[in-house]
Amino acid sequence: MHFFSDNATPVCPEVMAAIAAADRADHGYDGDAWSARLDDAFSTLFETEVQALWVASGTAANSIALACLCPPYGGVIAHEEAHIVVDECGAPGFFTHGATLMPLPGVGAKLTPDSVRDRLKTIRPDVHQVPARAISITNATEYGLVYAPEEVAALGDVAKAHDLGLHMDGARFANAVAHLGCAPADLTWRAGVNALSFGCVKNGGMIGEALLFFGAQAQDRAAEARRWRKRSGHLFSKGRYLATQLLAMIEDGLWLRNASAANAAAQALAKGAGKRLMHPVEANELFVHLTAEEAANLRAQDFDFHNWGEGAARLVTNWSQDVAAVAPLAAALARL
Amino acid sequence: MHFFSDNATPVCPEVMAAIAAADRADHGYDGDAWSARLDDAFSTLFETEVQALWVASGTAANSIALACLCPPYGGVIAHEEAHIVVDECGAPGFFTHGATLMPLPGVGAKLTPDSVRDRLKTIRPDVHQVPARAISITNATEYGLVYAPEEVAALGDVAKAHDLGLHMDGARFANAVAHLGCAPADLTWRAGVNALSFGCVKNGGMIGEALLFFGAQAQDRAAEARRWRKRSGHLFSKGRYLATQLLAMIEDGLWLRNASAANAAAQALAKGAGKRLMHPVEANELFVHLTAEEAANLRAQDFDFHNWGEGAARLVTNWSQDVAAVAPLAAALARL
Amino acid sequence: MHFFSDNATPVCPEVMAAIAAADRADHGYDGDAWSARLDDAFSTLFETEVQALWVASGTAANSIALACLCPPYGGVIAHEEAHIVVDECGAPGFFTHGATLMPLPGVGAKLTPDSVRDRLKTIRPDVHQVPARAISITNATEYGLVYAPEEVAALGDVAKAHDLGLHMDGARFANAVAHLGCAPADLTWRAGVNALSFGCVKNGGMIGEALLFFGAQAQDRAAEARRWRKRSGHLFSKGRYLATQLLAMIEDGLWLRNASAANAAAQALAKGAGKRLMHPVEANELFVHLTAEEAANLRAQDFDFHNWGEGAARLVTNWSQDVAAVAPLAAALARL
Amino acid sequence: MHFFSDNATPVCPEVMAAIAAADRADHGYDGDAWSARLDDAFSTLFETEVQALWVASGTAANSIALACLCPPYGGVIAHEEAHIVVDECGAPGFFTHGATLMPLPGVGAKLTPDSVRDRLKTIRPDVHQVPARAISITNATEYGLVYAPEEVAALGDVAKAHDLGLHMDGARFANAVAHLGCAPADLTWRAGVNALSFGCVKNGGMIGEALLFFGAQAQDRAAEARRWRKRSGHLFSKGRYLATQLLAMIEDGLWLRNASAANAAAQALAKGAGKRLMHPVEANELFVHLTAEEAANLRAQDFDFHNWGEGAARLVTNWSQDVAAVAPLAAALARL
Repeated sequence: MHFFSDNATPVCPEVMAAIAAADRADHGYDGDAWSARLDDAFSTLFETEVQALWVASGTAANSIALACLCPPYGGVIAHEEAHIVVDECGAPGFFTHGATLMPLPGVGAKLTPDSVRDRLKTIRPDVHQVPARAISITNATEYGLVYAPEEVAALGDVAKAHDLGLHMDGARFANAVAHLGCAPADLTWRAGVNALSFGCVKNGGMIGEALLFFGAQAQDRAAEARRWRKRSGHLFSKGRYLATQLLAMIEDGLWLRNASAANAAAQALAKGAGKRLMHPVEANELFVHLTAEEAANLRAQDFDFHNWGEGAARLVTNWSQDVAAVAPLAAALARL
Repeated sequence: MHFFSDNATPVCPEVMAAIAAADRADHGYDGDAWSARLDDAFSTLFETEVQALWVASGTAANSIALACLCPPYGGVIAHEEAHIVVDECGAPGFFTHGATLMPLPGVGAKLTPDSVRDRLKTIRPDVHQVPARAISITNATEYGLVYAPEEVAALGDVAKAHDLGLHMDGARFANAVAHLGCAPADLTWRAGVNALSFGCVKNGGMIGEALLFFGAQAQDRAAEARRWRKRSGHLFSKGRYLATQLLAMIEDGLWLRNASAANAAAQALAKGAGKRLMHPVEANELFVHLTAEEAANLRAQDFDFHNWGEGAARLVTNWSQDVAAVAPLAAALARL
Repeated sequence: MHFFSDNATPVCPEVMAAIAAADRADHGYDGDAWSARLDDAFSTLFETEVQALWVASGTAANSIALACLCPPYGGVIAHEEAHIVVDECGAPGFFTHGATLMPLPGVGAKLTPDSVRDRLKTIRPDVHQVPARAISITNATEYGLVYAPEEVAALGDVAKAHDLGLHMDGARFANAVAHLGCAPADLTWRAGVNALSFGCVKNGGMIGEALLFFGAQAQDRAAEARRWRKRSGHLFSKGRYLATQLLAMIEDGLWLRNASAANAAAQALAKGAGKRLMHPVEANELFVHLTAEEAANLRAQDFDFHNWGEGAARLVTNWSQDVAAVAPLAAALARL
Repeated sequence: MHFFSDNATPVCPEVMAAIAAADRADHGYDGDAWSARLDDAFSTLFETEVQALWVASGTAANSIALACLCPPYGGVIAHEEAHIVVDECGAPGFFTHGATLMPLPGVGAKLTPDSVRDRLKTIRPDVHQVPARAISITNATEYGLVYAPEEVAALGDVAKAHDLGLHMDGARFANAVAHLGCAPADLTWRAGVNALSFGCVKNGGMIGEALLFFGAQAQDRAAEARRWRKRSGHLFSKGRYLATQLLAMIEDGLWLRNASAANAAAQALAKGAGKRLMHPVEANELFVHLTAEEAANLRAQDFDFHNWGEGAARLVTNWSQDVAAVAPLAAALARL
């Protein structure tokens, strides 16, 4: 059984069914009936007026969001292990036309209001230095931790006080919400988030993530984002096949059911892993201490996963695994 | 019946089946078994070593190709009605970091060697002027005409003589090959083409086009293109769902069967349109003189299509329409 | 005697004296006493509040202006022979991050309201097409013609009606004002101009042009321009040596005296050239029909100049030439 | 007496004389007699074939150099307090079209081979991560320390081993060479440096720095740099006024005489500062511990300088100060 990544998962049946249901002629690009429903569907989910765009990938969602929040001469504060910093080949630099990422350290890949404030203090307000213009956080984080609404709100307050945009990379937003049991609104716009990359693919989708804008400037930013989407080759010819996936995810709660399953599987593994855990397990990722020998042992039992540097490994669960399915690995971990 | 665009078409059953067949766990991005077969499959089709990448859209394929052929301070010669010039919101400028499009007029949206040579003559070889570095042609063209191999080769000769890259936008490459009955190789690398945007979506695919590189520099350019693909957010998390579509298209000739069907439907309409035709019909697009009254007349019979300025219309056929299916419109046109 | 270009001219004595006068310690960049006077000095000259920045060259002034008026996905309407279109190696594309130049033909290198309106009509207001966002005109034009205040105002009206910024490349703005005898204000902000590249070097300066912003958004645009200036390496370490030149030019009318001298010399030559003139002579440039033999004849008399394609030549006069100085060439032209 | 910055200094008399000597008509841009001598003059100075371009500022020289060494998807390793990282408003990101700066800590603002190697080890060689493509060091450093030839060579070896370009920001290169007494060649190309920003303005020039390329790819890189220079608005209309300054500096040793004077003044101050020194003094900058009270005391004696955070100050000497001139401040420091 594989625990490489939630990208490795197949598409969940409900999404496949939605694709089949959309398989008929309609207008191209985003002129179709499914794309037309996106704003409303996400507005319902988030209990406020939302502008929603489909794009190909999380990298595209993140980068277009940042291009709308930060000018080329500005900076984006983010965790030093954030996906946008280490795993997107500089995509934010491409979409923002050269804006500067400002990486910060932080436990569990989280930013804190203090760390952000301290960084802001180092910036002189003259034209020689790059002014911070946005904060980007990942929820759940790259280490599988979840920012609670009040943690996001505290960063939102810093953002507001310094006139910074606040972006959330929500590749695993569903896992965060499933963990917290809160309203999506509480974790986003009510806490000061201006733009959200709403993950779909890791959570059972095939192709396509959603980029959402909230708040007073949502319309202007979304209008600009639609330009960036076209200009970056992300305005798919048959957008309905993306829109239908997003609708299937959110219109009847599938996104939370899938994420809850993945989270539950992760909890089951966490019990097995016990003291090996390097971080609390709050979403669907586990980081465990594991010697090369132990890793080989597990692989010999047909469990596979990525090493995480030396002496450690990353295990990712997904929507398709129920607790029973991961029980053998949980047991194997406990046995080590 | 709609004749708006081949983008409006549903996905053809073989492609849907291929997607279903790929619906199982595999590595993310382009680390999967289907993506791994792309280079070989296209190399077989083109009878030479080809580097093949999937991307989201024709705009992305075109722009990444140009970014590999033209530096930011260079120029790309293209027809003034080329898709890259008028319908991509400046995407080539985005991907090339500001390269200059150099639009030329030309009958049927075609470039000729003379028109290119004349344009080149106007450029002084000093640093004050933008040097041409690439030519981009569309085959079939935006007016549904097809460059024959010898026409492409003549442009390829100009390109070679002036050290320019040659790109072909092949959103409807299948229709061009189906019309000509030639080897894909004859229309591309044997004629001097360095990079081809190989269309899939208009021809029955769901999502994803292929970007192909040929010739001595293919490997270097593809390595760079893989960077641009990631950097522009086009490295899909579950790339296998794109790869499988492309393989389904080319591994057993589906791409040509679909294009032949669309071409045949266009020929049937062309007969009905008769003297109304504004251009010869060689692929799956017809441009016809049509008064507002005549257009209304057709629409009243439930045929729909886009106006093409005043007094004209564009009709696009697709893989799902056989000659019988379009016979009513052919007859209606003849009746007008 | 050379008539190659006004760039070939030495620096006029008043500017040299101003440089010497500024040759003492002061703060770096634009923190010095001279730079601090620029806004006021230009505000006086233009009878309104002006934001003024020095930059290295006309290319920089033009490009930074356009970067402040046009987003990367926008377009700039300009004459097809404008300096920004043909002689800046794509600098506007660099500074605007890929905006599209939209060249138009026009007699004497002038745009007309109709030509602009006609171009605007061809642009669909969807995300597939590049929206025009600015107009750039050159005054005096590349063919030595001068837009009168009412001509500029007519273009300013089109700009306002379509929410476009209006930029004037004034490399030879002094020559235009000297020709017209109008207030600088009449030719710029009163006619709807938002940004002016105010030429200094061709008119007797050594290094440095001014970029001026007018109107309601002047402050915001200038703040952004200051970022671009730094970011593009144009915030000189010892900016006082540029500021002092600009002040010397405008604070006691030197700019108009110099331009008037150059214009008068051009008029003297125009009389000599008679029917050879290809364009009316309104500033300090003449374009004359001249066979290769005639050109050789003049060169044998030690007059030199650039050919202008076949059978034509360009003659440029400058601040250092009085009517007497050019009399021999005027006579030689008349003798041909 | 001011110790703010060497940018605050007036122009040295020899440079002023050179400007006056160049004040006659010649061809525009870099077509003049002075610009034509640059390659040769720098080749003589560096004992190898050098390509030399004037640009407006150190920021421009640094950024154009990096644009020639690093693609948009690449990274530039530099010290976290390097001028390119903290004081250029993201100019490297602008010129490289979004390349990533990779800042490293290090004593005295120096990189070490180990720190670079360690950073390189963290980068996976896949398309998800930004590959390092260049190293940039500053000599003398931002803290007034000097890399010796063998230190540069050790970094040059790392660069070669990993196929990275090596750039040196030499805003105070003269001070470094004056300190070391070595051949300029030893500190640059013989140690693996590919591109040097050769400072002139801080060392007594008015406007203009030189960008130099060394080695096998020098010609290709310089050809590209000439495009960037034009495209970024740095191809001055009257380039001879820059070229003449650079020639005056290097053709008879003025650059070393000026730097030696500044260095000697710094040494005199260093003696006065004694244990207050935060870094060894090797060039013309001193960083000293200084309480607010002590700073006020000095300012009351009419010495001025920049604070360097709390409890510290930066003192910069320059070409115009001989040891006698700074003796009063040295004494005042000793008295504190």
